[in-house]
Amino acid sequence: MRAFCMTNRGLVFDKNYPVPDIGTDEALVRVLLAGVCSTDLEISKGYFGFRGVLGHEFVGVVERADSPEWLGKRIVSSINFVQDRDADFYRLGREHHPRRKVLGILGHDGAMADYVRVPLANLLEVPESVSDRAAVFAEPLAAALRIRQQIIIDPDKPAAVVGPGRLGLMIGLVLRQAGGQVTIFGRSEASLQLPAELGFATCLVDSYVGQHFDVVVDATGNPSGLETAIRLTRPTGALILKSTYTGCANIDLTPLVVNEIQVIGSRCGPFAPALRCMADQQIELERMIDAVYELEKAEDAFQHASQPGVRKVLLRIGESASGPGTK
Amino acid sequence: MRAFCMTNRGLVFDKNYPVPDIGTDEALVRVLLAGVCSTDLEISKGYFGFRGVLGHEFVGVVERADSPEWLGKRIVSSINFVQDRDADFYRLGREHHPRRKVLGILGHDGAMADYVRVPLANLLEVPESVSDRAAVFAEPLAAALRIRQQIIIDPDKPAAVVGPGRLGLMIGLVLRQAGGQVTIFGRSEASLQLPAELGFATCLVDSYVGQHFDVVVDATGNPSGLETAIRLTRPTGALILKSTYTGCANIDLTPLVVNEIQVIGSRCGPFAPALRCMADQQIELERMIDAVYELEKAEDAFQHASQPGVRKVLLRIGESASGPGTK
Repeated sequence: MRAFCMTNRGLVFDKNYPVPDIGTDEALVRVLLAGVCSTDLEISKGYFGFRGVLGHEFVGVVERADSPEWLGKRIVSSINFVQDRDADFYRLGREHHPRRKVLGILGHDGAMADYVRVPLANLLEVPESVSDRAAVFAEPLAAALRIRQQIIIDPDKPAAVVGPGRLGLMIGLVLRQAGGQVTIFGRSEASLQLPAELGFATCLVDSYVGQHFDVVVDATGNPSGLETAIRLTRPTGALILKSTYTGCANIDLTPLVVNEIQVIGSRCGPFAPALRCMADQQIELERMIDAVYELEKAEDAFQHASQPGVRKVLLRIGESASGPGTK
Repeated sequence: MRAFCMTNRGLVFDKNYPVPDIGTDEALVRVLLAGVCSTDLEISKGYFGFRGVLGHEFVGVVERADSPEWLGKRIVSSINFVQDRDADFYRLGREHHPRRKVLGILGHDGAMADYVRVPLANLLEVPESVSDRAAVFAEPLAAALRIRQQIIIDPDKPAAVVGPGRLGLMIGLVLRQAGGQVTIFGRSEASLQLPAELGFATCLVDSYVGQHFDVVVDATGNPSGLETAIRLTRPTGALILKSTYTGCANIDLTPLVVNEIQVIGSRCGPFAPALRCMADQQIELERMIDAVYELEKAEDAFQHASQPGVRKVLLRIGESASGPGTK
């Protein structure tokens, strides 16, 4: 099968990657669309030292599984895989299990390929009203919703998102679901155009002088984002850290103590509510798609996705579920 | 009066510092004992750019006040002073008011002097059963208790304190008040002797391989403490940041996101419960006193307090409340 891989020689498009074998608790999924995420870009620079097929944002159709009820279903999959329901599973969950694998990130081949192998326990059926182009956002939308599991988002208190990219926008949309007032911060006027069109208050990072925010989310993916976020957070406020990046941050942490700011690391979230939000059309996702590339052009897609201001680049891999590719 | 000051020329003992004038809402307090805190040591290195009389940990006797009920009372004082009960006061409180002054730290002369001026609103009477030598710990004990206002401390979950100094030990004592299991981490065997005598599990920072902790407090006062604390915190656990220090920390923040650790800056706490803990003798404080110096020898006291392994150095300034100095 075709697969886009991170190897010791860097990114490689492989025409003859072996189709994965599946176990009894797994499904073989034919991939329809996959998204390029900033984590993929970081991995391509060496983050986590991952080797194998890239990609953890995807929508596909179950092609093979021992459980017949899944066959032919259009699915998305949560990305943290745990083999055994041991004590750590019950204590820490899939997301923090010390021996977890993470789709396309840690020890398990990802979805930028014709087929991907995923545990049945991670599958979720996509509601009929949700398009493939929306469903591929299930993973990042779940990550945005994760914040709602971690702290109270009081819709009567001002919130800010630093970083107007794909994840930042989705977080902004989630934060205002209950009527919250959300300001999106960016480093260029161009990056703030779509946020403004979506009805957000917007502001350039460097020009802001005004009130502090009760909740600030750093979704920039770079170390300077945290410093900006600290500056914007009101005393005893909450700062959600969504950025991961290679290397260290050199920052003055004293304001965290003096202003008693609560910093909360935030990673993967719940897929089922993400799919329900999409089915309700609460969240406008497809406007974030900048381009769709064929899998053979994945390297161009990565190049495109790494340009400033680009939000979401997709890879088209298979025909849609109701098309000729259906088994 | 005598006063120990931070000036543009560095630390100065001044024999002729003016006795402060007081307003209608203030008290003139005759100081009995003052403690040297690591914040004082940082100020002496230039932290916060403070100039004036040092010292924010003290016990004294009210010598002059328009409110006669305070006269002659033995008191401690909380350290964040706010002049006006404006909107910011009700929204943010004394501790985070943008125009607050902080005793001996920010814009208000401190207590390493014969007399100190403090707002009546900040005074607390010291219970009779609490000695001067214990009462001087009111401020740091309140700071330790602050953690109890910020997160649930589940006594059935393991907790750790990194930094076996004065504040770290008090935090350890607070964390185990409900039967919690607390491990104190230090960098030398000598520093762990008193913690072990007080019944704590102890461990050298570099030699630890074992379970992660649900709650970890960084009370080291240096940037490496945070890195250690991140390493010790279990996924989705809480890391309380008590350290302030001059300059920046260069740390890898990715584990905060991947392990979804919650970092909570923590500063000043409630004095009334601190005094009640002391009156109940729940907290063994006097064993932390390494030395008591006369005010004239304050510079030697600072020198002593900055040595590794030293926990608490006090300055004796006035005679005790029942002694000849009482008015």
